[in-house]
Amino acid sequence: MELLKEKILKEGRVEEGNILKVDSFLNHQLDIELLNEIGKEFKKRFKNENITKILTIETSGIAIGAITAQYFNVPVLFARKTESKNLDNETYESNVYSYTKEKNYKIRVAERYLNENDRVLLIDDFLANGKALLGLIDITKQAKATLVGAGIVIEKGFQHGGDNLRNNGIRVDSLAIIDSLEDGKIVFR
Amino acid sequence: MELLKEKILKEGRVEEGNILKVDSFLNHQLDIELLNEIGKEFKKRFKNENITKILTIETSGIAIGAITAQYFNVPVLFARKTESKNLDNETYESNVYSYTKEKNYKIRVAERYLNENDRVLLIDDFLANGKALLGLIDITKQAKATLVGAGIVIEKGFQHGGDNLRNNGIRVDSLAIIDSLEDGKIVFR
Repeated sequence: MELLKEKILKEGRVEEGNILKVDSFLNHQLDIELLNEIGKEFKKRFKNENITKILTIETSGIAIGAITAQYFNVPVLFARKTESKNLDNETYESNVYSYTKEKNYKIRVAERYLNENDRVLLIDDFLANGKALLGLIDITKQAKATLVGAGIVIEKGFQHGGDNLRNNGIRVDSLAIIDSLEDGKIVFR
Repeated sequence: MELLKEKILKEGRVEEGNILKVDSFLNHQLDIELLNEIGKEFKKRFKNENITKILTIETSGIAIGAITAQYFNVPVLFARKTESKNLDNETYESNVYSYTKEKNYKIRVAERYLNENDRVLLIDDFLANGKALLGLIDITKQAKATLVGAGIVIEKGFQHGGDNLRNNGIRVDSLAIIDSLEDGKIVFR
């Protein structure tokens, strides 16, 4: 997606440890116009898939999921990372390994909102090692829902999570794939 | 807002400890059509205020903030509750007391995205004791931005955070104010 790549080149900042900061438009301040273009692009790519639900994960997936859902006319469901009094007791749970924090954390989705009749599109801002996405896939399976695929805004191709998922037959559509951030230079696939 | 009140009466579940669960449409699963109506209503109420930025707080404020921002054509900024590698080093910080967790937590906003030229509308899903909103107001002040007011989806009137803020001259517009949840019965103001 050209508009997105231009925005990444213009506003993205590469920092130590292969970190790409896009907090001016994607995960702290949100450029709602760009998010709408992203939502339209996901709709274009998954329009024939009869999606019934968008599943994402807090925090940074929520805005993208919500804006995208407008184009599919379906509800969004976001997995929670922390215990919350807003959540049911009956939940699907999955363990996600965080490389940055070097530990597992639990994600949860209330059982009542996801079931075997659902056709699920996963949405997230970043895909690196793919562990968060694996957690969402696990929860989709527990619900016996149909996994249609994943729509990702930025994939860090050099961390191979996306390719591993594709090799396992999972459809992963990333709007921008970055193959290198070495020497502070953003190289797209 | 009648549509919202009807939804709360139809799908809200009152649980022990004056908890109102609205996770079927507001803070776990998201009813995007309703969120759009909420966004339109906030626009109607604040349309003459020349809002330049919507400020909200993770997690449950994000979707409402993002959908609402479409009607104002402005960016959204969400305060982070946790340390995040996505965040700058230069941040406005405020301490928020959580009654449920009985402790303080920090919220943070990157300095570069909020300044004296901004006219800020605060958005959140719930207002109870008002401590989270006080944190956002504190950050708005630190940035020397102009606080226009707060748009809240559901105010728990019996916890008096909203009235305290109004008594201090802050405009708080809540789309539904609940005065009691006693005996599991939802009573609107």
